[in-house]
Amino acid sequence: MPSPTRIATLRERIDAGSITHEAIVAQALEGAQAPAAQHVFMRLYADAALAAARHADAARKAGVQLPPLAGLPVSIKDLYDVAGETTLAGSKVRAKALPALQDSSAVARLRAQGAAIVGKTNMTEFAFSGVGINPHHGTPRNPADAQVARIPGGSSSGAAVSVALGLSVLGLGSDTGGSIRIPAALCGIVGFKSTQSRTPRTGAFPLSQTLDTVCAMAASVQDCLLADAVLADAPLQVRQRPLQGLRLAVPRTLMFDGIDAPTARAFERAVSRLSAAGAQVVDLTLAELAEVAQINAPGGFSPIEAAAVHRETLAEHRADYDSRVAARIDLGMRISAVDYITMQQRRADWIGRMGQALQGFDALVCPTVPITAPAIEALRSDEAFFQANGLLLRNTFAINFLDGCAFSLPCHEAGELPVGLMLSSVRGDDARLAAVALAVEAALAG
Amino acid sequence: MPSPTRIATLRERIDAGSITHEAIVAQALEGAQAPAAQHVFMRLYADAALAAARHADAARKAGVQLPPLAGLPVSIKDLYDVAGETTLAGSKVRAKALPALQDSSAVARLRAQGAAIVGKTNMTEFAFSGVGINPHHGTPRNPADAQVARIPGGSSSGAAVSVALGLSVLGLGSDTGGSIRIPAALCGIVGFKSTQSRTPRTGAFPLSQTLDTVCAMAASVQDCLLADAVLADAPLQVRQRPLQGLRLAVPRTLMFDGIDAPTARAFERAVSRLSAAGAQVVDLTLAELAEVAQINAPGGFSPIEAAAVHRETLAEHRADYDSRVAARIDLGMRISAVDYITMQQRRADWIGRMGQALQGFDALVCPTVPITAPAIEALRSDEAFFQANGLLLRNTFAINFLDGCAFSLPCHEAGELPVGLMLSSVRGDDARLAAVALAVEAALAG
Repeated sequence: MPSPTRIATLRERIDAGSITHEAIVAQALEGAQAPAAQHVFMRLYADAALAAARHADAARKAGVQLPPLAGLPVSIKDLYDVAGETTLAGSKVRAKALPALQDSSAVARLRAQGAAIVGKTNMTEFAFSGVGINPHHGTPRNPADAQVARIPGGSSSGAAVSVALGLSVLGLGSDTGGSIRIPAALCGIVGFKSTQSRTPRTGAFPLSQTLDTVCAMAASVQDCLLADAVLADAPLQVRQRPLQGLRLAVPRTLMFDGIDAPTARAFERAVSRLSAAGAQVVDLTLAELAEVAQINAPGGFSPIEAAAVHRETLAEHRADYDSRVAARIDLGMRISAVDYITMQQRRADWIGRMGQALQGFDALVCPTVPITAPAIEALRSDEAFFQANGLLLRNTFAINFLDGCAFSLPCHEAGELPVGLMLSSVRGDDARLAAVALAVEAALAG
Repeated sequence: MPSPTRIATLRERIDAGSITHEAIVAQALEGAQAPAAQHVFMRLYADAALAAARHADAARKAGVQLPPLAGLPVSIKDLYDVAGETTLAGSKVRAKALPALQDSSAVARLRAQGAAIVGKTNMTEFAFSGVGINPHHGTPRNPADAQVARIPGGSSSGAAVSVALGLSVLGLGSDTGGSIRIPAALCGIVGFKSTQSRTPRTGAFPLSQTLDTVCAMAASVQDCLLADAVLADAPLQVRQRPLQGLRLAVPRTLMFDGIDAPTARAFERAVSRLSAAGAQVVDLTLAELAEVAQINAPGGFSPIEAAAVHRETLAEHRADYDSRVAARIDLGMRISAVDYITMQQRRADWIGRMGQALQGFDALVCPTVPITAPAIEALRSDEAFFQANGLLLRNTFAINFLDGCAFSLPCHEAGELPVGLMLSSVRGDDARLAAVALAVEAALAG
């Protein structure tokens, strides 16, 4: 597993003079071209990243106090606009689209910190699945298994692998139904899906305007919070809290259906450890979770809102789309405005009732995904693909639907396939949840 | 025409001891039962209104400084919840709906001021037309013409007539496509459609969640501002400005199409008067206005959003609906979510471009409606009704679509049918627009 505080560790080594920003970034760029990183990056920014690293080295030498991300390698998901480049969002069909006129706000904020952006990472086409398979640009291999080629999870597939391989200290991704947390869980790193409204979405190619969240993954909770402080309008004010006395609810509806044995084992072991360390862990029926599928029965926000984005392009260039993505956009085309508005209204009502049900708890705790990463080969058929996709997205999506916030933390042990433990809370509760995540992370490591 | 500052005039007479709150309210209640007020009120609150008036008289006697509306007669549109009553919204179909559990926020705020709510006013069924004809509860007659029974305009038909007849100092209404400004213009009073976000909509029966605005009409701009101060979260900070130097743009696209001679004459006379008084009046093509109909071509927000509200009820009780309302709800049922989202996105883009085009102007000035009030008899056929409805709503709707703010001021002369002059501006520009409206009102009176 990656070092739990990679950014602080690197800063210490740099301050001790045992390595330079330039060497760190050069290593990242070298690693990005190794076989393990095949299909991880859509493109590399070698010169610019090295220049940012050298600038950080020079500034440090001159006595400048650097911001946390300055001169350190970060990766950006292919759906973020970079001025002068065409944003593909993992697609083939956008190859002839006009180049972006300016950086997306997330990229601009990373640049303003002096981060060394090493490259644009691969993703599911238009961020439209939790699997991470991309028929156009290849599928990054999950680094957790040297024997079997397993999916990395998606849609921020390359982002997760770039962090898991140590090629970036943070992977800028996005999360509409779990696209940060699923690959973080399957690759064994930390993902933080902040409350949607924390971060501006300007210049991020949209999947669902209702659900898209600009956020990132990293090697630790602390590193995720450093990323969040750059991406959000204002940093979270996190008050450290002991694990003792935290009230964690384990939702017993939906979230454990179809769980596999390794995930169940790792999750229950982690929860036992949290209980032993003093957390109050309470089972909660939370029957409201069964309503998510009912409310979304007409088709869900992503298919509808993606259909609004792709209507013209799909009509003209259907053959250039991943057929599995096109199928879901087609579904969205057929949904009525009345069904869409009714979904919005029922969601708002559901969010209110969920908020009531969660009062008195510091966080929900459940598996991020109920299964470990399947082999890529096992998902060749559409049937297997869509079944796995549904299972991968189910738990994480419930929190997007809640307009909530969530961390996925690794809870497996060395030698096991990665398993994510998801801590979730309601909209705007990010600071409290971050304190919970720091305490849980420490207890699981201890 | 009503006295231009009815609330201040009444306050002066009360302070001079020449009349009491109780007498004013008693007169209003008497007037409400006169033939001229037939179909204006859906119900009267005689006892409660008199009690509020007596309370104001007693408080004044005890030396209490009263809020502006205390003890004065106001009317509320039938779509506002009153605790314990079923909200009909001008319909027959809701007669068996459950009573409201609490007052709508607008009604609660009026009550908190001590206003004497004399009654609930008639309206177009579900606020769904600008004409003011109601097949279930009768159509209030426009008080401007003693010979011909003309439409009052709608949807806040009874509200306008209640103010025009002097039966209330303000008529609480709502404006989704012109429902405050159209009846205000046709009945010769002042209507203020504030920026939508100024006033909470809790407890107001919805037509279009995108466009519905809680606002009011009265005898003068100042009286409208007193109403706004009660209905909104915070009063406008209006800085009085002289007419000299105000830059007013007359939009020459769309707004004058199909104008009738009396309206053209009154409008041009008013504009000449404003120019003579020192305003800079500039013709502006504003071709963007032609896009409103294009963007709304799939069907518009009101039909779609009303369809989401009425789907079940209309399916079960179609015969109880006004067929002209049901026809438009049916239209909304057939619109796709993609078309709806596309309308939202094109609207947002259009609002941005309109904002650019209007920079440098203090307000747009045009006729509120391009025609004077038609005879009720002339609108018997669906064809005539829908044609008139389209014409009545066209100018006002453009400002709802802009998410803007607007006043309608009377600009006819004694002996003429009422004509409204609309002053409009962009979202949130209400304070500046109010200053313009005060200056224009003074110039037109002078």
